[in-house]
Amino acid sequence: MAITLNERAWELVEQSLSKLDELKIGCDSLQTGTRVLDFGVQTEGSLAAGLLLARVCLSGLAEVSILNGEIGTIFWPVVHVVTDFPVQACLCSQYAGWEVKTDSYFAMASGPMRANAGREEIFKQLGYSERHRCAVGILEADKLPDSSTVQQIAAEAKVEPQNLVLLVAPTSSLAGCLQVNARAIETALHKLHELEFDVGRVVSATGMAPLSPVASGTLAAIGRTNDAILYGGRVTMYVRGDDESLEQIGPKLPACSSADYGKPFEQIFRDANSDFYQIDPMLFSPAQVVFQNIDTGRVQCFGKTDEKLLMESFGIFP
Amino acid sequence: MAITLNERAWELVEQSLSKLDELKIGCDSLQTGTRVLDFGVQTEGSLAAGLLLARVCLSGLAEVSILNGEIGTIFWPVVHVVTDFPVQACLCSQYAGWEVKTDSYFAMASGPMRANAGREEIFKQLGYSERHRCAVGILEADKLPDSSTVQQIAAEAKVEPQNLVLLVAPTSSLAGCLQVNARAIETALHKLHELEFDVGRVVSATGMAPLSPVASGTLAAIGRTNDAILYGGRVTMYVRGDDESLEQIGPKLPACSSADYGKPFEQIFRDANSDFYQIDPMLFSPAQVVFQNIDTGRVQCFGKTDEKLLMESFGIFP
Amino acid sequence: MAITLNERAWELVEQSLSKLDELKIGCDSLQTGTRVLDFGVQTEGSLAAGLLLARVCLSGLAEVSILNGEIGTIFWPVVHVVTDFPVQACLCSQYAGWEVKTDSYFAMASGPMRANAGREEIFKQLGYSERHRCAVGILEADKLPDSSTVQQIAAEAKVEPQNLVLLVAPTSSLAGCLQVNARAIETALHKLHELEFDVGRVVSATGMAPLSPVASGTLAAIGRTNDAILYGGRVTMYVRGDDESLEQIGPKLPACSSADYGKPFEQIFRDANSDFYQIDPMLFSPAQVVFQNIDTGRVQCFGKTDEKLLMESFGIFP
Repeated sequence: MAITLNERAWELVEQSLSKLDELKIGCDSLQTGTRVLDFGVQTEGSLAAGLLLARVCLSGLAEVSILNGEIGTIFWPVVHVVTDFPVQACLCSQYAGWEVKTDSYFAMASGPMRANAGREEIFKQLGYSERHRCAVGILEADKLPDSSTVQQIAAEAKVEPQNLVLLVAPTSSLAGCLQVNARAIETALHKLHELEFDVGRVVSATGMAPLSPVASGTLAAIGRTNDAILYGGRVTMYVRGDDESLEQIGPKLPACSSADYGKPFEQIFRDANSDFYQIDPMLFSPAQVVFQNIDTGRVQCFGKTDEKLLMESFGIFP
Repeated sequence: MAITLNERAWELVEQSLSKLDELKIGCDSLQTGTRVLDFGVQTEGSLAAGLLLARVCLSGLAEVSILNGEIGTIFWPVVHVVTDFPVQACLCSQYAGWEVKTDSYFAMASGPMRANAGREEIFKQLGYSERHRCAVGILEADKLPDSSTVQQIAAEAKVEPQNLVLLVAPTSSLAGCLQVNARAIETALHKLHELEFDVGRVVSATGMAPLSPVASGTLAAIGRTNDAILYGGRVTMYVRGDDESLEQIGPKLPACSSADYGKPFEQIFRDANSDFYQIDPMLFSPAQVVFQNIDTGRVQCFGKTDEKLLMESFGIFP
Repeated sequence: MAITLNERAWELVEQSLSKLDELKIGCDSLQTGTRVLDFGVQTEGSLAAGLLLARVCLSGLAEVSILNGEIGTIFWPVVHVVTDFPVQACLCSQYAGWEVKTDSYFAMASGPMRANAGREEIFKQLGYSERHRCAVGILEADKLPDSSTVQQIAAEAKVEPQNLVLLVAPTSSLAGCLQVNARAIETALHKLHELEFDVGRVVSATGMAPLSPVASGTLAAIGRTNDAILYGGRVTMYVRGDDESLEQIGPKLPACSSADYGKPFEQIFRDANSDFYQIDPMLFSPAQVVFQNIDTGRVQCFGKTDEKLLMESFGIFP
């Protein structure tokens, strides 16, 4: 398929520029010409901005919507994602595989500019590369990038600074939460890939997670957004190929398969001496995964949600 | 934000004029030039017309959709609303704060023409005013307004009659029900305002209510549409500021905090000698409200739905 | 209402032609000029293609969406349909009332070309006919039609071959499943019509069914797609007229009223000696139907879903 992820994402961004007020976001053009869109650092952001941000993360290759859900007896909004291009949308674009780290700045970067940069191992493994004139990136960060950071990103993404657009949202913002909660499919797919499953077999997927409440402070926010996926995230994957491989990998896939599972993520992080690298990487996946094999017709279900833990994490005392 | 409510609502109405048949609505141009759109008086109306009507009530500042729900084990459609402009959409526009009363006509009026009229106390309190060349109003009424009523409305809305559009739907019509059921957020917000809470702290909200069945006769219809909110309405509010004020006001917010709570609204009305002014004004709010404080991260939940009463009100005997 | 079903469906198809890759569908122009769109025979198809296919089946007179649902504790996508033109959308267009049968080809045909052909008894009964220059048909079939079959269809649909568009999807494909699962309202309405109820009384409807897993092989696929409706399909009908007729017909309407009810459809079929005509025609309807009489306000509920049987049919072992 002749899809250019950066082109699709760029179009979505272009459309949003006429709706900055309505989205409660800001747009700053740096001297270099790079446009930096503020989705919640110095602006309020909004639920609509979060939906847009999630769609841009997915390069417009997924439908993202806010639907009605429940946690226990409490009305609770959920983020729902449907995609027919799970690998391109989630792994080549949405996955936050680029750590932007300079003396003055830190961010987890996602979006299709990763495919233009092409530096991550995963692109080689997936055989996907892109070379577009323009690049779109999303930064999960608490502040806006300075111009030297932006220039460095542009260089690595192989575009002129004026052809780079960056969308920035803190984890502890409305839009920032929503874009993380929209990652149920992505985490499942990434874990499958880590487990050396051929993700090309996944042709379509639907996923959801509760919209985690905005937390005060980055660590608490990272905790809640992760808990939304680990304990509330649910995914259906439409898969081709044999059933045996699914039967074998299935039990390893949901978050509950990890030894670290069972506590709010913030506590897991503290128990790991506040060192991400001491946390079991196999923890990061949704609570429940359903495989529907469209070749054989077999359905296999793994894992389940943990409402009690979600209520603890979100601070719900009904 | 440079939003003109009447301008946004006007655009929505314009778009609908080419789809009258599809919406099963009618449009009559009075001699004065005022266009009166009939959403269910002499026309059938439709669910799609109800969605449009709700969106116009909200001046296009909210997403409104019909989703799948349940009452007990019975499949039941729900109306879902998401807004990032709760005060402008719900209080400055959707709230039915204008009683149109002439010798020959009675209607509860809502929509952004209220902001152009600017006569209600609430606009002074919220510091919101609008002065647009065109005005859009929604009339909850059993008949279409006569031309002298329309002229009076135009004068009060400070527009030339030809620059006024009125959308009319009886409570006991498909579209009329839906537009009332879309008021879960509005009722919560209005009650907060009545309780002297600074509603500007509410930055976004999601809400839902079951789509109440069309009733035979206005009183029964008012009963059911109110019950949908009082016993089935659920709202999440994304709020800024301190937690203590939310903790104090929270228990007073859901409908169950009112002494009149617990009976179908039609019966409450009869018990109040058919006099609205004898009903506790604090009754009018959703069954359940969740505050998510996006400054502190604290979540507070108040109230719950009453399915049994909904079934009684809607006449559901499974 | 001046609706031309074939015109509306044609517009939907036209829009899709620029998105073939995105929908993972193909388009072949036969020598006769007829365009045959492949929604899953030699192509993959997709969930988005399924939504489009369902909308074309309904001539664009219904909203079709994928929402979040559950079967037991398992996350399960559902197909949701809302229409204000149930008779035109479902009976005059979506109903698969045309059996295409040549020496070399077999398909169940639906879509508005049926109305152009006007050969089925139901069009006479409903007093609906159409004579449009262009025609759109949907073929539920395992292979693409050959050109002589296409010419025969064009002749019966009374259009020049170049003015015919055919959309083809196997039952055992992503898009093919979805378009069948979108038939909850249609089956209820068709059964009402068979029971000699005046379906013109149904002014609007909402419906849903779980998205049945793609099965291996046509018979298994027919089994699961039918089970989705029979045991998981739920419909709300907004009806005019008297209540007594609804009270009488109601108990006969849900699938459970049939003696054949209670087993997976594939087994019912085998028990009927693999002969469709030995199956009770009254079996084909949703699990649950709610009548909302918008004249009298009375609500009547009939039938219920059977999750256990759905789990058996779909192969869900949680």
